[in-house]
Amino acid sequence: MTIADRWLLPDGMDEVLPPQASRMEELRRALLDLYHRWGYDQVMPPTAEFLDSLLTGTGSDLALQTVKLTDQLTGRMMGISADVTPQVARMDAHSLKRQGPVRLCYCTNVLRATPDQHQGGRSPVQVGVELFGHAGLEADLEILNLALASLTVAGAEELHLALGHIGIYRSLVEAAGLDADAERAMFEALELKSPGELAARVAESVADPTLAEMFMALGRLHGGVEVLDEAREAFAEAPAPVAAALEQLRALLRGVLAAHPEVALYLDLGELRGYAYHTGMMFAVHVPGYGQALAKGGRYDDTGRAFGRARPATGFSMDLKQLATLSPAEPPRDGIWAPAEGEGLAEAVVALRAEGERVVQALPGQRTGPMEHRCDRELVQAAGRWQAVTL
Amino acid sequence: MTIADRWLLPDGMDEVLPPQASRMEELRRALLDLYHRWGYDQVMPPTAEFLDSLLTGTGSDLALQTVKLTDQLTGRMMGISADVTPQVARMDAHSLKRQGPVRLCYCTNVLRATPDQHQGGRSPVQVGVELFGHAGLEADLEILNLALASLTVAGAEELHLALGHIGIYRSLVEAAGLDADAERAMFEALELKSPGELAARVAESVADPTLAEMFMALGRLHGGVEVLDEAREAFAEAPAPVAAALEQLRALLRGVLAAHPEVALYLDLGELRGYAYHTGMMFAVHVPGYGQALAKGGRYDDTGRAFGRARPATGFSMDLKQLATLSPAEPPRDGIWAPAEGEGLAEAVVALRAEGERVVQALPGQRTGPMEHRCDRELVQAAGRWQAVTL
Repeated sequence: MTIADRWLLPDGMDEVLPPQASRMEELRRALLDLYHRWGYDQVMPPTAEFLDSLLTGTGSDLALQTVKLTDQLTGRMMGISADVTPQVARMDAHSLKRQGPVRLCYCTNVLRATPDQHQGGRSPVQVGVELFGHAGLEADLEILNLALASLTVAGAEELHLALGHIGIYRSLVEAAGLDADAERAMFEALELKSPGELAARVAESVADPTLAEMFMALGRLHGGVEVLDEAREAFAEAPAPVAAALEQLRALLRGVLAAHPEVALYLDLGELRGYAYHTGMMFAVHVPGYGQALAKGGRYDDTGRAFGRARPATGFSMDLKQLATLSPAEPPRDGIWAPAEGEGLAEAVVALRAEGERVVQALPGQRTGPMEHRCDRELVQAAGRWQAVTL
Repeated sequence: MTIADRWLLPDGMDEVLPPQASRMEELRRALLDLYHRWGYDQVMPPTAEFLDSLLTGTGSDLALQTVKLTDQLTGRMMGISADVTPQVARMDAHSLKRQGPVRLCYCTNVLRATPDQHQGGRSPVQVGVELFGHAGLEADLEILNLALASLTVAGAEELHLALGHIGIYRSLVEAAGLDADAERAMFEALELKSPGELAARVAESVADPTLAEMFMALGRLHGGVEVLDEAREAFAEAPAPVAAALEQLRALLRGVLAAHPEVALYLDLGELRGYAYHTGMMFAVHVPGYGQALAKGGRYDDTGRAFGRARPATGFSMDLKQLATLSPAEPPRDGIWAPAEGEGLAEAVVALRAEGERVVQALPGQRTGPMEHRCDRELVQAAGRWQAVTL
């Protein structure tokens, strides 16, 4: 292997250099502080777990993305965490076992076997929150508002919130009695957002004309808040859970608008992202100029069942690497340049650092100077004491 | 697989729950802030890299500890980082390519295939610094003092610094003309710290009686600073690099004592840890009550050569998980408990959080209360406005 080859990093496995790493650290702190102020306690899930734990419930969609390896101690299969959510659900269900609502947050590296087409790299730094133990709209609204607050903290100026509810499609599928194959075909047609394809699938498997009309409506009902009024009409004769889901969306929109009147709202009743594990509202927050959503989340009740304790759950996550690009990384030129040696210098440097100053000490023979090390002052001896003098 | 099985975590893959996770986050910040004030810039190495890059130079000792996997995009072998040092050396040599001294720091999860007998778990959070581009003692002294400052920041009250220099053994091996087998046997005898074993190996492979005496001295020269005086005598006729190494140790001890007179000093001239990659002084910092060293480091010049740029280098690293146990994690009861709803409540909560307060809002029907959520105050409406009242 040549030297040039060793330099190469695998595709999507990025290193983060200064000053971008400091920007990410700053943002990590700002977000975790935000979550702390909202009552969320930090947890740190393990980097690797037994595969059975990682791919349970929420995690089963992740099988392809999870890097697998044999545990040298037990011979059992382990996986490197590709999504923190199932791990935090395990912590809530098994490790914490608390009564009542539990609010948790995290910020940690994850690894993906293949690049997520929606998220870019294979080594995101996943940051997010989960609220366990409350099935009500108030919990969903808190999560929505916290996602919007997170992006504002990260420096986003214009937020677009896309909201959906998996309960509508689920109820229609049940009412139409679709078998697994028909459901899969219907799902794919809606994912394609192709009216022709959808019409073909509906003609194929939905006999009831009223239900057929409703499936067709799913493909068309996206846009501003007015979609909810159209939906009320389109789903007037739908099963009861559909009306309940629409009422939930209406209440969530009202709540979001009250707290964030500046946010642009978008509804998509045919959105099926995370169909396998979402159980209620689901959302994505977009920022102009970014192809992918910067925050994604929703309700995913009962994930903890696999760990012996079914609990309502709602939350969201983001990629810190992506978020950090919302604001430029411009480290200030704020250091104090100190010479390599001098009488009483060590004490002066210790004192300045104790005051919070950044002091970069020259090393004997060093040819780079204060400019290369972002220093705007220099430590000089005057009248028997060391003083920081502006350069 | 039963539910009980799913709960199990692989041995040495720990999850960190509240409040310990907050304590680790606090310490992470304190250490990275310390490094910032000393002029060290943060970097974030990738979680996985091609194996050839990870196991180059410094990394070759790590082959057994590195989790390996096939890159699904290229078919080439990748490794999960088990030690950040070679990655940071690559960043310095190839990605940054700066002139003059470069100071870098990091704090990141690493993964080990098997438990490190000296470090416990398989999922440490490695935190440390590296100083590249300066071969002088001043750089080594800065690293020593920064390691001691790190442990003080982490809450250690009594520090023991063990110092050695790989140059002494290396010079003797060269002078005695030991072949690879003889060197390996000698190395193992010294590692065992067994005088009998050492005497046998010396008798076997060192013909020159003066040199033989010096090898025997290596096994005996450990203890307080007085060891240096004994060494001067024992190595009076040793090759020149031995005298230089002793002079370096003397100067380092002087420097450490000037900055940290409270630290207990220990010298071990027969210490060979990291023999494969260390090139100068090496050290470990111990704290009473901990079986293993809490910080380990030393000089390891020329690691960057594999990446096309040989550079002097010195640094140290620690495990944040281990460090966090130095101080108890006792989160303060400092939150404000807010009711689920009320006129003007949302605005009051937003305002309090903006002031930095931790406000935990009750969810409808919630049966746990302020005590369970570490709140010492409650938000109540009085005279038309919301006020935080001590509980």
